[in-house]
Amino acid sequence: MDGRPPIITLLSDFGLRDPYVAEMKAVILTICPRAVIVDISHGVRRHDIRMGTYILYRATRYFPKGTIHVAVVDPGVGTKRKPIVIETKRSTYVGPDNGLLALPAGKEGILHVYEIRNPKYILREVSRTFHGRDIFSCAAAHIANGVPPSKLGPELSDFVKPIFAKPRVIDGERIIGEIIYIDGFGNLVTDVSPSELTLLGIEEGDEAKVVIGGRTLKLRLCAAYGDVPAGSPLLIFGSAGLLEVSINMGDAARSLNVKVGDRVVLEPLYKS
Amino acid sequence: MDGRPPIITLLSDFGLRDPYVAEMKAVILTICPRAVIVDISHGVRRHDIRMGTYILYRATRYFPKGTIHVAVVDPGVGTKRKPIVIETKRSTYVGPDNGLLALPAGKEGILHVYEIRNPKYILREVSRTFHGRDIFSCAAAHIANGVPPSKLGPELSDFVKPIFAKPRVIDGERIIGEIIYIDGFGNLVTDVSPSELTLLGIEEGDEAKVVIGGRTLKLRLCAAYGDVPAGSPLLIFGSAGLLEVSINMGDAARSLNVKVGDRVVLEPLYKS
Amino acid sequence: MDGRPPIITLLSDFGLRDPYVAEMKAVILTICPRAVIVDISHGVRRHDIRMGTYILYRATRYFPKGTIHVAVVDPGVGTKRKPIVIETKRSTYVGPDNGLLALPAGKEGILHVYEIRNPKYILREVSRTFHGRDIFSCAAAHIANGVPPSKLGPELSDFVKPIFAKPRVIDGERIIGEIIYIDGFGNLVTDVSPSELTLLGIEEGDEAKVVIGGRTLKLRLCAAYGDVPAGSPLLIFGSAGLLEVSINMGDAARSLNVKVGDRVVLEPLYKS
Repeated sequence: MDGRPPIITLLSDFGLRDPYVAEMKAVILTICPRAVIVDISHGVRRHDIRMGTYILYRATRYFPKGTIHVAVVDPGVGTKRKPIVIETKRSTYVGPDNGLLALPAGKEGILHVYEIRNPKYILREVSRTFHGRDIFSCAAAHIANGVPPSKLGPELSDFVKPIFAKPRVIDGERIIGEIIYIDGFGNLVTDVSPSELTLLGIEEGDEAKVVIGGRTLKLRLCAAYGDVPAGSPLLIFGSAGLLEVSINMGDAARSLNVKVGDRVVLEPLYKS
Repeated sequence: MDGRPPIITLLSDFGLRDPYVAEMKAVILTICPRAVIVDISHGVRRHDIRMGTYILYRATRYFPKGTIHVAVVDPGVGTKRKPIVIETKRSTYVGPDNGLLALPAGKEGILHVYEIRNPKYILREVSRTFHGRDIFSCAAAHIANGVPPSKLGPELSDFVKPIFAKPRVIDGERIIGEIIYIDGFGNLVTDVSPSELTLLGIEEGDEAKVVIGGRTLKLRLCAAYGDVPAGSPLLIFGSAGLLEVSINMGDAARSLNVKVGDRVVLEPLYKS
Repeated sequence: MDGRPPIITLLSDFGLRDPYVAEMKAVILTICPRAVIVDISHGVRRHDIRMGTYILYRATRYFPKGTIHVAVVDPGVGTKRKPIVIETKRSTYVGPDNGLLALPAGKEGILHVYEIRNPKYILREVSRTFHGRDIFSCAAAHIANGVPPSKLGPELSDFVKPIFAKPRVIDGERIIGEIIYIDGFGNLVTDVSPSELTLLGIEEGDEAKVVIGGRTLKLRLCAAYGDVPAGSPLLIFGSAGLLEVSINMGDAARSLNVKVGDRVVLEPLYKS
């Protein structure tokens, strides 16, 4: 261990009004007083594992090697779903085995997955409804103190993976993608990557035909929101590296009446 | 003093949009740079001392011995209500003398109560509207630096206690309790404890007759939300150790149209 | 450098649901693990530079000398507006050159303004939409590590200043001021200072004629909200040192139907 204090991040669907997040932090600081705790988000929609996964996936990339991520979107708490720890090449993930951790952990290269079972590293009394406090935070704090994840319980060979639609390029002529996230500004994050747009021959400055929310729009692929007038829609590669449909100074989700899971179809516009 | 940095928690009804919470933290870090500050909640309903007390009571139990808790739900700020410090066997509580601190402090065993009056340990200019910053945070930071609470002002022999209804077991046949808190998931926290339910002979797995929100329901006392189908109501001992009425994957407060302060009546169901 | 860990504050219009704030913190802690990060507010209205400036102005006064303030309300991100650092006599401000930083920095005495351009102190890949993470947080963390602001880029001789209305005393008989902020309690913060009210001869305990929201009210200048009955309006110097129109235990913004930017006219009431 070097002199850097260990970082533990927290993500949940608990909100910030209730005492739940504070109880998790209290458990962590009791066990590991030098831990630096960083909230990723507690505004995940109740039980929305997919939204939690997207936020976790985005944010964890920027944390330093060795960070411990605790994530709790856990509709199956108290049932047979297992509490797990995933050790990757960069970080450690602690949470329920319901698909929440698989995507960000997988991206980093998974080394081992363990079920959390050793009573030494969880609270003495485990409630049926709040494993975020009684199991996950407690285990994470022990890991921050140097306990190897392999001590927490038996290694698992399998765990739950989430299912996402993948954008498809049809006949090299159009992409059928999906809205996977809507941020607080109303920006529509799709699952379309730069390389897919390149396959269609759409480059920065080009216009594309976009079918979304029952409408057909002609949108330019811009480098900045301010490249179109205030109130106008545009395409832009957002800070997650994925294609977004946005409105400069406006709210695309509201204006286009679109929600997470909706389809977006993209086609190049050929000069006639 | 050992090497553990002092922990100061904050609870208020200030919300997170305004600069108020940040100003409290700024005052604390100016006086005690090594303090670890943890937000318990700033989402207490405006002036709702009872809601603040419940959240404080729940969360403080999990913090380590020696933690300093600053709580500010303070409709009487600037009037004659006193600023106080309560020293307990585990922690120190700093806030207004209006009932907010009495319940969690009482549970830990109160040693001394002091009025905060010594100008050495409060800001030079005390505003009439923001004692959270000018008095409470400042006093707490000095305590974190090692100033004994007895230096803050004269000892008080009396202070304000909050009034809560207590659930009553009538004729050993039914419990009349109350909804004391509704969390962000819509779970209805009652003031009914496990021992009271045991008095009625209701055990895990049993069904009980529950009168709530003008309806009479037959609910099972479950160990996990997932013990009933999604959308179904249940009884469960929540993570506060109190009986809750919940809906698996749903929002009991909205579905049952219930608010804090509403009555809940419980009766065992006898086999006929 | 003494032993105090460096403090970096964050203010933005990002909200707390999305991963954006966490990504900024991750960048900071990767570069400067000992930084203490304090959120001032992430609840600034989208693109509302003026609201951001007011919150920043209020809160920064209470932070210790040497604090680094990162502020991001940045509708022009990705356009020609410059990323800047302002060095003052007390602190360092990092953010967009759009007027957001000028007021709080100006109050402290500006020493130097630099454009952030040195690629050594920003992320290798700078997105077009999220300079808060890629430029501002990164630069701030390097400054926290001891890099002098002058190394970040060329000195600027000019930068954007925000425009605020100033309250005016007309003929020594009335003040025409403006609502500059409404807090979460519904208190109406005006731009009227104590000295201006003194010019009109209005002192604590006096009543004044107040024209606001199309109504004419007779309000007393009080020392505490509790000086008038619950539900009654009053004048009070709030914790920012500015005159506020409030309702004891109520919400003045809603009751008086007033919004930011509305006019407020004050006149003394002479004994007849």
